[in-house]
Amino acid sequence: MNGAPPAGPAVSFADVEAAAARLHGRVVRTPVLHHPALDAATGGTVLVKPEPLQRTGSFKLRGATNAALLLDEGARRAGVVTHSSGNHGQAVAAAARMLGMPALVAMPDDAPAIKRDATRRWGATILTFDRHGTDREALAGRLAAERGAALIPPFDHPHVIAGQGTVALELVEDALAASFPPLDTLAVCTGGGGLVAGCALAMEAMAPGAEVWAVEPEGWDDTKRSLEAGERLENDGTGSGLCDALLSRRPGAITFPINRRLLAGAAVVTEAEVLRAMRFAFEHLKLVVEPGGAVALAAVLAGKVEARGRTVGVVLSGGNVDPAVFARALAAVA
Amino acid sequence: MNGAPPAGPAVSFADVEAAAARLHGRVVRTPVLHHPALDAATGGTVLVKPEPLQRTGSFKLRGATNAALLLDEGARRAGVVTHSSGNHGQAVAAAARMLGMPALVAMPDDAPAIKRDATRRWGATILTFDRHGTDREALAGRLAAERGAALIPPFDHPHVIAGQGTVALELVEDALAASFPPLDTLAVCTGGGGLVAGCALAMEAMAPGAEVWAVEPEGWDDTKRSLEAGERLENDGTGSGLCDALLSRRPGAITFPINRRLLAGAAVVTEAEVLRAMRFAFEHLKLVVEPGGAVALAAVLAGKVEARGRTVGVVLSGGNVDPAVFARALAAVA
Repeated sequence: MNGAPPAGPAVSFADVEAAAARLHGRVVRTPVLHHPALDAATGGTVLVKPEPLQRTGSFKLRGATNAALLLDEGARRAGVVTHSSGNHGQAVAAAARMLGMPALVAMPDDAPAIKRDATRRWGATILTFDRHGTDREALAGRLAAERGAALIPPFDHPHVIAGQGTVALELVEDALAASFPPLDTLAVCTGGGGLVAGCALAMEAMAPGAEVWAVEPEGWDDTKRSLEAGERLENDGTGSGLCDALLSRRPGAITFPINRRLLAGAAVVTEAEVLRAMRFAFEHLKLVVEPGGAVALAAVLAGKVEARGRTVGVVLSGGNVDPAVFARALAAVA
Repeated sequence: MNGAPPAGPAVSFADVEAAAARLHGRVVRTPVLHHPALDAATGGTVLVKPEPLQRTGSFKLRGATNAALLLDEGARRAGVVTHSSGNHGQAVAAAARMLGMPALVAMPDDAPAIKRDATRRWGATILTFDRHGTDREALAGRLAAERGAALIPPFDHPHVIAGQGTVALELVEDALAASFPPLDTLAVCTGGGGLVAGCALAMEAMAPGAEVWAVEPEGWDDTKRSLEAGERLENDGTGSGLCDALLSRRPGAITFPINRRLLAGAAVVTEAEVLRAMRFAFEHLKLVVEPGGAVALAAVLAGKVEARGRTVGVVLSGGNVDPAVFARALAAVA
């Protein structure tokens, strides 16, 4: 957890498998959901992995818990530090509480209230910063160094990526056990790319030949542009903040090489498509999905990730959304 | 399915077990959810059975499918008829489609649009009637007789009750498998009493000594008053329609003797408590729960079913709610 990432392949499927064993009984094994309305709307067989049902309301608990469990005893005593718009912060706070460690979470001052409150409820100390004027990685690094604490970054770390990959590992295992056809495609919500990188490693080993797609919101399509350019490009930061969970500056140094090697591509969805997907999940799946957690579903519903005639996995990555934002989705056309 | 109910005990735990085997792979085995926020709010260990995740969005699919599967070939050809405010109607429609039968559903003209539309999407013919001026049992009986079709009533039938009991059977099995302490209490949303009767039969056999509580909305407390009086009493029908799934006239002829023998009691919750429970499920569980599906959670959160120091199962019975009603819950105090 301290110093530079290891040389060579930073994360492998074996790390995802080890994370799955480590997380057993510590995180929720979310079910695989299949709804005829989703098949009818897309022309495919769509299998949903609902991480809003994860404790802390998003998949982030997986990576944070895996990373926390891999800290040695000395590191645990000094506690953990992270920066996060909210879902990773809650996850680190919950993982730290489980292991009896102090946690300090640096959050942008415009993070949703529901995420700030929940992070505090999990027992973390919160320090807010200005989203636009602050280098959050540098801030978190400084805070960790001051305290001698371990830094658990939101996506660009092998242990975090390996934990997030358990989402796809479980989906493939449980879909097989339920006798669904093998997955042809997996669509994954993408900010810094930790979730999709971990999932792509699992898919490479467990469902070789299947396509893995990153999905991003309009204005925050750094992964799409970076994949096309073959190098890590930045967002200009002026896009809408609706998908607050996905407002990363650029792909990670560790996540990007994995995603460049393994992804079939990236799709970009509009705000209207995101709100429609949230409304669809409300009406048919009965799940509360946050905007950033709904982009993969939005891409499949909009035909931007092709589902017709295919078996497609869709990760709903989180459900931590303020009531006023959810009310906007309720007003969207179904 | 035709003629008078059988003499003797109408339903037994063996019928619930047989229903579970019959429904395997045909209905969703909904997960058991456990959230620290719910334990913190109640002082107990609360295990949630989320039937909004059931295909058709409520537990009703269990009883309807069990009853449909028990029709003989001749009866299947003539199709099925029912009356329902919406959740049972959708369930009968979905069960009929699965078996290739026609379905006719009589619905009150003020049923929520989301339920009417979904029933139609499942392929049923809908006939609307005036809620206040119509004897719905007589209407459904007449429609069935005219067509030679089988009547699958919403609650007062042994095959329906047995199917609903699989909710508690799964909850007890899965809670045990996940190493939770044995259930001390189960709280169940109650209209005509089919769900709670089936669950009570399962609990009697699988968790003897545990208390089973019916929970009703204010103004529709026929089960509570009937349990106290020792005979079936009617509601005056003037209560609020918020919990549209629970607006039954009186306990069933078959359900009431079971409930009288097995229930610990009945609790009654207010509209404000129901909306608060829906808001809690939105914020913490990330589930869309309809008013009638939230009454058991409301009772536990309000302390009307005691959870402190206990392990309590809570059935969330459905999630078919119009956006405007859900928006009211979003505005409730968390």
